[in-house]
Amino acid sequence: CYISNCPIGGKRSIMDAPLRKCMSCGPGDRGRCYGPSICCGEGIGCLMGSPESAHCVEENYLLTPCQAGGRACGSEGGRCAAAGLCCDAGSC
Amino acid sequence: CYISNCPIGGKRSIMDAPLRKCMSCGPGDRGRCYGPSICCGEGIGCLMGSPESAHCVEENYLLTPCQAGGRACGSEGGRCAAAGLCCDAGSC
Repeated sequence: CYISNCPIGGKRSIMDAPLRKCMSCGPGDRGRCYGPSICCGEGIGCLMGSPESAHCVEENYLLTPCQAGGRACGSEGGRCAAAGLCCDAGSC
Repeated sequence: CYISNCPIGGKRSIMDAPLRKCMSCGPGDRGRCYGPSICCGEGIGCLMGSPESAHCVEENYLLTPCQAGGRACGSEGGRCAAAGLCCDAGSC
């Protein structure tokens, strides 16, 4: 599950383990899921609500929390996603 | 130019003319530019900072203001861009 969306008290309570990277996605699987319909990667940019990001919703059903890569940015727990783009689980 | 980014006093002052739609973009040119690096369309979703949205920067150099289609949404002059996505010239 996306760490910002994981059920409270579920696996989110195990905060010490290094967070798993969220599922890969996009052309050639070169991107990473940043949210249920957001797929970003170098050279790909961010694909929102597009066919390539559709399978990122499956991450919602995995019990262990994941976090997209990249440095923290923005005000709501965003992560650097691609050149000049900062995404959280719902927007970029 | 994107109406939110047009030079003040330039063509932006002619507010009565119906606004031109911004340039088309994306696969099969089926999308519309919503910002200098944002291309959205039905079935495409929104492509941000991706090769398909790169040419949307050219809109910056056109003197007449344009506005992306779709109903107004969000708080900063956003427009409905694709299923469940509201974009302004810089974010979705």
